[in-house]
Amino acid sequence: MELLNFVGVFAFAVSGGLVGVRRRFDVFGILVLALVTALGGGVIRDLLLGIDPPSNLSNVPFMLTAIVAGLIAFRFSGSLDRIRKLILIADAAGLGAFAVSATMLAIRHGHPGIEAILVGTITAIGGGMMRDVLAGLVPSVLTQDVYALPALLGCAGTDLCVRMGVLNPITLWTLVVLVLGLRVLALRFHWQVPKPRRLTRDEPNRPGPGSAP
Amino acid sequence: MELLNFVGVFAFAVSGGLVGVRRRFDVFGILVLALVTALGGGVIRDLLLGIDPPSNLSNVPFMLTAIVAGLIAFRFSGSLDRIRKLILIADAAGLGAFAVSATMLAIRHGHPGIEAILVGTITAIGGGMMRDVLAGLVPSVLTQDVYALPALLGCAGTDLCVRMGVLNPITLWTLVVLVLGLRVLALRFHWQVPKPRRLTRDEPNRPGPGSAP
Amino acid sequence: MELLNFVGVFAFAVSGGLVGVRRRFDVFGILVLALVTALGGGVIRDLLLGIDPPSNLSNVPFMLTAIVAGLIAFRFSGSLDRIRKLILIADAAGLGAFAVSATMLAIRHGHPGIEAILVGTITAIGGGMMRDVLAGLVPSVLTQDVYALPALLGCAGTDLCVRMGVLNPITLWTLVVLVLGLRVLALRFHWQVPKPRRLTRDEPNRPGPGSAP
Repeated sequence: MELLNFVGVFAFAVSGGLVGVRRRFDVFGILVLALVTALGGGVIRDLLLGIDPPSNLSNVPFMLTAIVAGLIAFRFSGSLDRIRKLILIADAAGLGAFAVSATMLAIRHGHPGIEAILVGTITAIGGGMMRDVLAGLVPSVLTQDVYALPALLGCAGTDLCVRMGVLNPITLWTLVVLVLGLRVLALRFHWQVPKPRRLTRDEPNRPGPGSAP
Repeated sequence: MELLNFVGVFAFAVSGGLVGVRRRFDVFGILVLALVTALGGGVIRDLLLGIDPPSNLSNVPFMLTAIVAGLIAFRFSGSLDRIRKLILIADAAGLGAFAVSATMLAIRHGHPGIEAILVGTITAIGGGMMRDVLAGLVPSVLTQDVYALPALLGCAGTDLCVRMGVLNPITLWTLVVLVLGLRVLALRFHWQVPKPRRLTRDEPNRPGPGSAP
Repeated sequence: MELLNFVGVFAFAVSGGLVGVRRRFDVFGILVLALVTALGGGVIRDLLLGIDPPSNLSNVPFMLTAIVAGLIAFRFSGSLDRIRKLILIADAAGLGAFAVSATMLAIRHGHPGIEAILVGTITAIGGGMMRDVLAGLVPSVLTQDVYALPALLGCAGTDLCVRMGVLNPITLWTLVVLVLGLRVLALRFHWQVPKPRRLTRDEPNRPGPGSAP
């Protein structure tokens, strides 16, 4: 789990850094965005669970990982753009890792069931939402197909496994892979969810809509 | 009160769903926006009051109400656009219900006076602010005429009634209707509050880059 | 310290009010933005430290200061634009005051070291971030040169002084002046930090998030 958490931090930080590069932020802005993306979800999680101060604020290894990932995004953005697929996969891995681990943490704090599932989902998608809002983009979870759903399913699965007393390393990793797999399949096959009919009185083609990497 | 809270959740969720429809989000994005708008204010309220985890995260009836409202917004957006007035009234009712109930909750947690009034106001306007920020819009509370003021007055009235020992179902509902009425009157008669003089060196519709002065 | 905190609240409120004036908000929107900018950082600080409800919600002198500052920004925006330099200096003073005082508060709550430094930095830059996000701008901390760094150094210096047992009025004010000075020097000499190479497939100069619904 710890390893996957590092993968998640790294992947989310890279995605944050790349959004900063695209928005032409300077290196500080890029690092701030990398840190917020990687650690923001966990901060929200701890605020929701009443863990004061949030543990991510003293997790130096996570911070260094995020900073290194942000610098890589800054320095090698050209190449990283080419390995875009690898990043999306890592991002999906992070989504799975954060979803499962945050759900477990919420259960351990005595809040199983719907609370744990929602805390897990919010943690998994929260960092990316903060990234997009700060960068002036509409969060990809609102515009991209099938992003929050895999996380939600992973959290629900984790809660179910704990209830059934079968949460062990095997089921846990299966859940992470499930989230990762669903997200990657959604990306690969461009799974679409229904969109509203175009309104007659439509808003002009407004800039907002974000484009997460 | 419970009934009005449901009206508030429903109305705010409809407003969130409609904003999602206008921004052409997919159905998941619309539901997320509906949930955030309806439950976000209460989550902020509980974070401010130190209620961990926020009660809205385990309030399944509220969630189902918000999801149903979001689906209605998604499915019947054409018709809903026509019954726009009804929505604005429901939104005003939600504003009143959340303002009064959050103020009462803050007082019950031992924070009467200015704290209760501010927690109430932030709760009432918070969900809508999150909706607009996530949708890439400037919160309507900042741009629309007379939105926060009715909520603030309702919260102050609630605190006053508690102080005077006269908070009962009659005064409570009177306060809700007061907020609702002020908001509806402001909408009906386009109450204007002063705007700054146009600056000579006015900023063009600037792209993102923040400009702290 | 108390005096400088008032200076910080006043300066941040003026900056919030001026952003509101530029975005053509009405007087309520301008006051909300002034209050959020001046008090928002402290609210985030208290949420991170588990102080419920945040002390700023009952700090009437701070609120009145922020409201007066917001009204000044609303009324005299023309003149204020001319005394832009004074505002930037006051903003820098506020940055220093909030950075140092929040770090001290975090240490007093039993969280020295990296936690105190990060809580201090987040407090110092948080109000301005909320201001820009609500106003539909990208936070200046992400786009402006050398903004977060002086705050971070001031927080680290405060933590170091406490560790070495030499935090007294003299060192404390020295730290505030250090933050202020670094920020002013950065503004004066347009210190640049490296920006990413322009990408070949660059995003067009996108306007920020849209206007009110």
